[in-house]
This record gives sequence, C-alpha cells and structure tokens, in this order.
Amino acid sequence: MTASATPVRVRDIEAAAGRIAGHVRETPILALESGAFDIAAPIVLKLESLQHSGSFKVRGAFNSLLTLGVPAAGVIAASGGNHGAAVAYAAGRLGHRAEIFVPEISSPVKVARLKDYGAIVHQTGANYGEALAASRRRVEETGALTIHAYDQAEVLAGQGTVAREFERQATAIGGVDTLLVAVGGGGLIGGMAAWTGGRMSGPRLKLVAVEPERCPTLHAAFAAGSPVDVEVGGLAADSLGATRVGTLMFPIAQRAVDDVVLVPDEAIRQAQLALWSRLRLAVEPGGATALAALLAGRYQPARGERVGVLLCGGNVDPATLA
Amino acid sequence: MTASATPVRVRDIEAAAGRIAGHVRETPILALESGAFDIAAPIVLKLESLQHSGSFKVRGAFNSLLTLGVPAAGVIAASGGNHGAAVAYAAGRLGHRAEIFVPEISSPVKVARLKDYGAIVHQTGANYGEALAASRRRVEETGALTIHAYDQAEVLAGQGTVAREFERQATAIGGVDTLLVAVGGGGLIGGMAAWTGGRMSGPRLKLVAVEPERCPTLHAAFAAGSPVDVEVGGLAADSLGATRVGTLMFPIAQRAVDDVVLVPDEAIRQAQLALWSRLRLAVEPGGATALAALLAGRYQPARGERVGVLLCGGNVDPATLA
Repeated sequence: MTASATPVRVRDIEAAAGRIAGHVRETPILALESGAFDIAAPIVLKLESLQHSGSFKVRGAFNSLLTLGVPAAGVIAASGGNHGAAVAYAAGRLGHRAEIFVPEISSPVKVARLKDYGAIVHQTGANYGEALAASRRRVEETGALTIHAYDQAEVLAGQGTVAREFERQATAIGGVDTLLVAVGGGGLIGGMAAWTGGRMSGPRLKLVAVEPERCPTLHAAFAAGSPVDVEVGGLAADSLGATRVGTLMFPIAQRAVDDVVLVPDEAIRQAQLALWSRLRLAVEPGGATALAALLAGRYQPARGERVGVLLCGGNVDPATLA
Repeated sequence: MTASATPVRVRDIEAAAGRIAGHVRETPILALESGAFDIAAPIVLKLESLQHSGSFKVRGAFNSLLTLGVPAAGVIAASGGNHGAAVAYAAGRLGHRAEIFVPEISSPVKVARLKDYGAIVHQTGANYGEALAASRRRVEETGALTIHAYDQAEVLAGQGTVAREFERQATAIGGVDTLLVAVGGGGLIGGMAAWTGGRMSGPRLKLVAVEPERCPTLHAAFAAGSPVDVEVGGLAADSLGATRVGTLMFPIAQRAVDDVVLVPDEAIRQAQLALWSRLRLAVEPGGATALAALLAGRYQPARGERVGVLLCGGNVDPATLA
C-alpha cells in the first residue's frame, strides 16, 4: 500500500487536526521574559518535546494511520529514532500491529521503548540501510502499510498541525511574527509551510528553517533548485540526519520558507545546555537547533519582531545534560 | 530586619502577583489525555518546575525583596536547596547583594549555580544547622535582610500566586475542582490555601496536601492540633524535609486544606520516572510527590472530578533519570 502524492493544502491540515485531536497532546507554549538568553526580541517557545513519544512525529503517524487503511498485517517502519517511536506509539494506541526495523547496533534503551509501546522489534543489519532493506522485504511479504518518515502527504499534513496549533496559542498572548523550525528531511517544515503559506487571511507568518551546518539538506536543495543528497553528520544527525529533503515538501518550501540559516554544533550544544539550566527542559540536539539560531546570532530578529521557536524533540539521554 | 506576621489575605496575593509579574514566569499548564498514567480522572499539570531557579520559591523571594526594604548589606539566606537558589536568583536580578550559607558538604553543582546567580556563597558548618547559625551571626553583624524559607507572610503571599495563576489558566480550558500540592514547611500550600479559602465568589477549589510518608509535617500538625517537630528523611527530604510546618500557615491550612495524604518513597520515584518517560519532564522527587498520590491511589478522584497537579520543582540531577 502506498501513500498518495497529493499536495498538502490548508484544508488537509484542518482535517488532520480534527482527526488526531485526542490522540496527540496540545503541547504548551512558554513566553520568555524579555532579555531571556540575552536575546532582545520577545520569544515564545512551543514545548513539542513534551509530545507523546517525545517528538512531533506522532502527529504525522496518527494522521497516516487514521487516513490510510491499515491491513491486518499492520504497519512497518525502519527507524530506531523518533519516526520509529512515533509509529510504534500511534499503532499501539490504535490497536494495530507494528513492526519496527532497527540496526543491530541500536541502543537497548531505544529498543526497550519500542517494545514498551507494543511493537515487534527486528534488530537486523549492520546499519540503517540494511534495516531499511529488510523492512521493505517484510512489507512485500506481508502487505503491511509503511509510513515514510517525511516524504508523504499524510505525514506532512499531520506535522502541519503544529503550525496551526502554535499560531492559535500564540495569538492568545499577542501573536508571533516568525517561526523558527529545525529541518532534517523536511516533513515538519513542509507541513508548517503548507499552513503558513496557504492561509488566505491575515499577515503570513514568516517561516525560518534552521539546519546544523553538518546536515544542510534544505540549504543545499535551495542552492541546487531541487532536493540533492548531502553528507550528514554531527551532534544532531540522529534526528536531523536525512540525506536529502523530500520531493513533496520542496515546492511548498520554495513558496513559503523565507530563510534557511545554518548553525554550528557548538551552538546547538549551548542551546541544549541553556534550555536545561535555565528552564529545566530536556531536549535532544535536534530539539535545540532552532533556538541555537537565535543564541548564536545566526538569525537576528528585527526590532519588535516576535519570534516563535519550536522545540521539536525531547528524546535525549538525560545523563548528557548533567 | 524581621518580617511582619500579618495574616495572608486574597488582596495580599493579588498585590504580590502584580509586584512579581515580569520577574517570574507564568509557567505553562498541560492537560493530559484521558486515561494518561492509567488515571480515569481528567488531569491538568502545572509545570512550575520550569520556573526561574527551578522552583516556585522564587515567587516568595521576589515578593519579599520587593515588599521589604533591602539594606545595602543585602539579603542573607541559609540553604543549599531551592530556597537558597531562589533568593540568590531574585537578589541577582534586582541588583541586591546576596550571601548564601550552605554546609561544607554541599554539592559543587549547587554551589556553582548560586555563584552563577551572583551570590556570595559561604560553605560553612558540618550540617544545615551550623550553616544556619553562621548565617544568623552574619545577619546580626551586617544588618542584612533575611528571608525565611516558608514562615513569613510575604513568602506565603508570593507562593499563593501559584494558585491564582493555576486557577485562571485552568478556567480557560474547563476548570479544575481540586489541586494536589506537595508539602514541606508549608509555605506553598499555606499561600495557596489563603487564595482558595479566601475567595468570595464561585465554588471553592478543593486543596489536597501530599506528603512523603517520611516527611509528614502537616499530617502530624493536624493530628496534634498545632505544628510539631517530626523526623524527616527519604527521597524527597532535600526539598520537603522541613522538620515542622510554619506557624503562619497552620491556621490557614486548618481552614482551607481539605485533606492530607501520605505517599511512600517508591511511589514518588515511580512518578518521577513516569514524568520523564512519558512527558520528558525532569522533576525532582518533591516535584513528583503530588502526582505520586494519584499514581499510587492514595488520592482517588470522584467520578468526573477534574484534578490539577502542581509539579513544584525541577532541580534534579538529570543523570538520576536515565
């Protein structure tokens, strides 16, 4: 079973929001005091790191499972990271069988968590590519549904609900002008761009992509005029280390992503430690990447610009924060 | 300089809220999905663990410093814990000198944090009592202001702003009937009881105190009819280990605390781990104590009862969550 390749419209995101309500958390926002983190601009954080399964990915997973038919063979994903956790969690809550393929080297903590969500875990292959290949053979064999980590319309629509929710929450406290969002394969910012770019009324929110210097997928795609492979590595590669952005998100991003900024790993680490020491928020490197753009001055807000920052994931080993 | 012993009224809490606005965070609330943590009742968490200095204590510290005159000698406190951190943080932000007395055995992490907030730290004495005695001599010598950790009207009024804020935030999403709050010396619940018990309109919020079995100060005080010394120990003693509740809070608690429940250390640890694994929230044992009452069935909500739970502190070594 394959996913449809329809473009993502505002009404798809509205429908996704209705579909996944009650299954995903409305994660809180937190307006920082002026001058926090030595940034002059007013900052509003959205704590999506507190989402079920520890990241925004569960929005797209629920929207996919609730939109597409799930056969008795269930759903299959290859991922020891946030995508796998999200699919395992969502399938478990909805009573579907889930098989998650991870490389043999995956950490026992991550494997235990997938099992805790009720998934069948296959530890197979020396690396992600081999686990992925094994998952594809299993899909052929069983007819199970598979959900792409980012390049699928239902996934984009689900992730786009973050923008809808953030905008509404921020409006209640004076609004934001700009959203800073970390990018890996682009499912999150693609969905968010479909929301901000597709809205008919009111001023359009400015959308700024933030990427680690060592995972510059959207930056490279914009430079090349289409998605291209890049080498990825560094601190945030476990969550932002897709080798290229999706084909579905790219035209949406061309229309509605206003800027791409790159941040060094040191800035990501500093942002992660600052979130812990000043806010007691535990986020993974990818979850701290958007804030790193502000802390490192890679994104400089205009006078009076109100900036929303998405903390997109919290799946961190807490010992690394000590 | 000593604090006034006036009772705490709703208007004192209103005044405190105005005074400390902009200095303290309006911490977010998070409505849990139904059935979360296997609890049937609708639960709303207030994430006061994200407060400046990592706990609610900064509310009382700011209210005290902004109400009482602060001499050039500044402010002195004896505490290596949340009270000391709160006084150091508030004094630093307001430009006052702060001297914090801690026992010689205090952890380097806590001492570094006090210094980071700008305080002068005196590591002196083999235990808390000796550090306290040294701090009192220093107060005599310098004429500095001292702020009690809980038994002071300005502190109670500051902590009471948590109840005001929680009530207002919860009302926007359907309201709560009951608040669960951890108790040590009683400054927090005393201030909250002054708010819930003193309101003239609307149904009164039910207020439930939760104490570790090994720190049963309010339970013992209610049994005795007045504050009495108890032996304290166990997992949460670093934040809830006062030896008796304050004299100011006691009559307020008698009027407006509806119940006191005790929870074992194992339940506190389970609540702390559940908050980490399911919500990526890092809280200290004292911060998980109120939730422990629900998880361990020590507080059983009535059918349809909407329960607010205060997560009061986040000053935990993250390595203990791994």
